[in-house]
Amino acid sequence: MSKPFSFTLHKTDGGGRRGEMVTPHGRVQTPAFMPVGTQATVKGLTPEIVHGTGAEIVLGNTYHLMLRPGPERVAALGGLHKFMNWPRPILTDSGGFQVMSLSELRKLSEDGVTFRSHLDGAMHDLSPERAIEIQALLGADIAMQLDECLRLPARPEEIRRAMALSLRWAERSKRAFAGRARDGCALFGIVQGGDDIPLRLESARELTAVAFEGYAIGGLAVGEPQEVMLKIVEETAPALPAAHPRYLMGVGMPHDMLEAVARGIDMFDCVLPTRNGRHGMAFTRFGPINLANARHAADPRPLDEQSPHPAARTWSRAYLHHLVKANEMLGAVLLSTVNLAYYQALMADMRAAIEAGRFADFRAETLAAWERGDLPPL
Amino acid sequence: MSKPFSFTLHKTDGGGRRGEMVTPHGRVQTPAFMPVGTQATVKGLTPEIVHGTGAEIVLGNTYHLMLRPGPERVAALGGLHKFMNWPRPILTDSGGFQVMSLSELRKLSEDGVTFRSHLDGAMHDLSPERAIEIQALLGADIAMQLDECLRLPARPEEIRRAMALSLRWAERSKRAFAGRARDGCALFGIVQGGDDIPLRLESARELTAVAFEGYAIGGLAVGEPQEVMLKIVEETAPALPAAHPRYLMGVGMPHDMLEAVARGIDMFDCVLPTRNGRHGMAFTRFGPINLANARHAADPRPLDEQSPHPAARTWSRAYLHHLVKANEMLGAVLLSTVNLAYYQALMADMRAAIEAGRFADFRAETLAAWERGDLPPL
Repeated sequence: MSKPFSFTLHKTDGGGRRGEMVTPHGRVQTPAFMPVGTQATVKGLTPEIVHGTGAEIVLGNTYHLMLRPGPERVAALGGLHKFMNWPRPILTDSGGFQVMSLSELRKLSEDGVTFRSHLDGAMHDLSPERAIEIQALLGADIAMQLDECLRLPARPEEIRRAMALSLRWAERSKRAFAGRARDGCALFGIVQGGDDIPLRLESARELTAVAFEGYAIGGLAVGEPQEVMLKIVEETAPALPAAHPRYLMGVGMPHDMLEAVARGIDMFDCVLPTRNGRHGMAFTRFGPINLANARHAADPRPLDEQSPHPAARTWSRAYLHHLVKANEMLGAVLLSTVNLAYYQALMADMRAAIEAGRFADFRAETLAAWERGDLPPL
Repeated sequence: MSKPFSFTLHKTDGGGRRGEMVTPHGRVQTPAFMPVGTQATVKGLTPEIVHGTGAEIVLGNTYHLMLRPGPERVAALGGLHKFMNWPRPILTDSGGFQVMSLSELRKLSEDGVTFRSHLDGAMHDLSPERAIEIQALLGADIAMQLDECLRLPARPEEIRRAMALSLRWAERSKRAFAGRARDGCALFGIVQGGDDIPLRLESARELTAVAFEGYAIGGLAVGEPQEVMLKIVEETAPALPAAHPRYLMGVGMPHDMLEAVARGIDMFDCVLPTRNGRHGMAFTRFGPINLANARHAADPRPLDEQSPHPAARTWSRAYLHHLVKANEMLGAVLLSTVNLAYYQALMADMRAAIEAGRFADFRAETLAAWERGDLPPL
């Protein structure tokens, strides 16, 4: 038996939590941001570049990988870590969210979901047990239970039904996962309940009774206003056991993460830093900057000369503007790097602020800097 | 006055030449391959990755850079080296070839060429003097004269006319360049003359009389059979002064370069390693490999476990196949890296073979390895 997954909470400061996870492939400092490696690659970036941004863990998508190249193929090739040459921790989602958002002809039953692949039209089944099996074949350090994730707004009875189904799937996932826990891997449950606080609390309570290594809050960042999301996080997080990591799925913008950490969240994943980077947007401590804007065309200044990462210090805004306007692949590569590095720097700064007991001050300073906005024109 | 550009011929072995260029931004070992950085970027690759393949010099395209972002802008931002963060030698072409191949509404006169930008339809002029001015604004270590490059086949009188015009432009380029030579930069003349050997020899003789730091053979790899190209190289190279570098423009496939080095060529540039890399093709010592082919889908072997570059040793063929099939940007990045590294390794191996006086053996071994082809299926 390998050393089991563990989470240690080192320090709290208000709602903020400074912790550390131990997984079979290494440690992860929390609060942590996980770059998304949808199809066994963080888009456009070598693992070396991803690690250079400060990332300690990446996320893989079960939906995409089950369709192509297939989990049995990945397992035969030595697992996802070896396949993509990322020897550090990997969390995989269960596929549920993307079955709902990407595939056609879904048929949901107590047993699971049947869907048509968006790639080739082939029919596939996904059950709680198969989702665990796939994640085991991929070799995830942290696996997620299959859940049903609704789009908001949704009718109250639909939200209740999906929450209750997700709970039953949580229990089945836990039973199916039993073997993997012996290898030091972790399974996280997922709180559902839409924007209904009592349902969220019921979901959190029942999941805690099933007992997972970590707890995610799912079904958010699906179209609701930020204040609704933060309200649900604020109410739900304290209902989860303090000794386990809390993961807010699919979030988010830097401001979302700052506020969610203040409300007790330890982990995030989001495609925004890479997706927006591919579309010419940089995340910085001055707020977002659209490099396609003509005001950058002759600007010799880097994005942020005080950035800890060379990508934000080395190339001029004029050069990045040129790459974006010329639709050059390197623009996507450099801005994805800049953005992941900013996300990681924000996490590192939040961790340091919590350790120093000054998270409230850090939050106010960060909000003020974003509020001031970008450097004035030259 | 800076130290002037120099070329030292260290060793010859048959037709093969082992030399070294000294430029304001550093030394270049020859035979040398120059990756193409069309729009101030080798597509998809950071300068660090490009240098990591072994490249000592890159090529920039005057045509593209004069249209966007414009040479005055690049100069105001500190020159092309700083703009793209490549502190090593840069050669720029004169723009002539791409005016002919990419732009519309060309009007050629004794003075130069007027053309419509393929980007926005604006009219631009390019003369021998303006081509030198642009390359000076970019800050090229090695500049090229403006020439007229015909597509082959062409009528004999057209070939003669274009060759004679290119010679008159060579003289004007030399006069316009005088100031830059004081800074240690070099200007290369370009031999034209199509597939007409006497015209090629006349062009070489006249260019040599004008006296350049280096001599290119232009107007090849424009549709003619390889044997025609090699025949022209074989006849033309000995007519050029041995003490100066010889550059075969726009070439080529590995086999083209092996044969051209055997015929006395010192420098090459070509988009094939990056362009074909973006389309799923790897250049290796086993010959070209199409990663989109289904036979690689489950193959755990790297492209070449004996490659000096980690990109060819680290990822499995199955992973590269997956990236290509999924149209993932990282596939283009990794295969461009693999290909540039193979081109550089081939150059390094040719240099070592010439030094050791065994170029003929190396050539035969390399041809035999390409002939044997890829590894057998598992």
